[in-house]
Amino acid sequence: MCQLLGMSCNVPTDICFSFEGFHVRGGLTDHHKDGWGIAFFEGVGCRIFHDSKATIESPVADFVRHYPIHSKNVIAHIRRATQGKVALENCHPFRRAMWGRYWTFAHNGTLNDFYPLVPGFFQPVGETDSERAFCYLLNRLQNQFPGPAPNSDQIFQALQGLSEEIAAHGDFNYLLSNGDVLFTHCSTNLHHILRQAPFGCAHLIDQDITMDFSQFTRPDDKVSVIASFPLTDNETWTRMAPGELLMFREGEPVRVGD
Amino acid sequence: MCQLLGMSCNVPTDICFSFEGFHVRGGLTDHHKDGWGIAFFEGVGCRIFHDSKATIESPVADFVRHYPIHSKNVIAHIRRATQGKVALENCHPFRRAMWGRYWTFAHNGTLNDFYPLVPGFFQPVGETDSERAFCYLLNRLQNQFPGPAPNSDQIFQALQGLSEEIAAHGDFNYLLSNGDVLFTHCSTNLHHILRQAPFGCAHLIDQDITMDFSQFTRPDDKVSVIASFPLTDNETWTRMAPGELLMFREGEPVRVGD
Repeated sequence: MCQLLGMSCNVPTDICFSFEGFHVRGGLTDHHKDGWGIAFFEGVGCRIFHDSKATIESPVADFVRHYPIHSKNVIAHIRRATQGKVALENCHPFRRAMWGRYWTFAHNGTLNDFYPLVPGFFQPVGETDSERAFCYLLNRLQNQFPGPAPNSDQIFQALQGLSEEIAAHGDFNYLLSNGDVLFTHCSTNLHHILRQAPFGCAHLIDQDITMDFSQFTRPDDKVSVIASFPLTDNETWTRMAPGELLMFREGEPVRVGD
Repeated sequence: MCQLLGMSCNVPTDICFSFEGFHVRGGLTDHHKDGWGIAFFEGVGCRIFHDSKATIESPVADFVRHYPIHSKNVIAHIRRATQGKVALENCHPFRRAMWGRYWTFAHNGTLNDFYPLVPGFFQPVGETDSERAFCYLLNRLQNQFPGPAPNSDQIFQALQGLSEEIAAHGDFNYLLSNGDVLFTHCSTNLHHILRQAPFGCAHLIDQDITMDFSQFTRPDDKVSVIASFPLTDNETWTRMAPGELLMFREGEPVRVGD
């Protein structure tokens, strides 16, 4: 099992505060010690930092903690290996390119007997059920929309059925982004919070750190943070329902699964 | 125009010494200030550090300089923009997945009027001639070998014709790797050197730094370094011929273009 962290914003924002609380779950306040990764979209560009070391021991994680990268869509993951050895190729988020855009994906949960035989271009490099699920999703989307890229609403509709189908194999909490929007699907545990004016203070659960967002924001800023479990103890996080799919754009959930 | 740096080894080796000389060409001893990137294969896993800042001003480059990542296949690039704006998506190396493996590519040179219309899955995300050439190469390889992955010799043969075809559009110096082998193609400037026992000292051209490799190597180690221009001034680098394609495996050029 693993933990997920995502962020969607309407202005490029750094994720340092949330990552500060999240990263200690990779070996200190929780047991997700088998690697980690974080993907930042910067326009259509995307960069990923990965390491097969635990976040609390990873020099790369230490660098990310202290280097504020501003992004409108971020996906991070800390791993506790259930399928696939501890290795770089098994660290989330995974990334592929489709329709001339990068797509990144991170998953929490275990899928049992999930070895789909769908002909398609996307193949996993590593050994995880998660990367198989990602490639399966992309192959199915590619097959459904072989021409020009569909719009976000069409992708959302397609993901609803596909997610339900895959979730029949086990827990399928995931984050998926193409830099425009961030899709989140919940099987068991996924929470989100929208921070907007009037901004207040937030206090981390995993470390005794408080951040006063009013010092760093403008009145129109909107930032949604999505995490397996709430990261702060003085804010109200919304728990997603099992089977629920959300789409975040510019910091807000813009469409709710029906 | 840009500069290339590659490394092929038979044991995972860090590239810190070569990168130390190379990175100052990104704004200090040379004018390649429009971004940079470096890809490290670790087994089948692959991680890339990118930045649209000049290497000499990039905190990410500073991190890479001081954090020895051990890899058998490395590709690095410093960019001087000729096609495509200064942006993360236009930084080399580019990466795609094909046949269940990651492929990375970096290019030096300018391709004129290169807008190939080959139907294929791979599409560029950014605006460079280089990423178009990479996608074109992959589409052509995929079309030629639609079934299981071909072996390295078959890929080498295919790349010979493809490289010649693309090089008709301009300068096409490139490095391409799937983690098993590293292909290098020269149009104008590409040099390589094989370091093996008895190991000696090397002195950088771009900085007054000397490294005694005998202190850090074993007798069987083999390390080839490939660069647009030699990085050291007391070793003999081999200049590749225009139109020459090489394939490096486990530190050595194992097959020479005919």
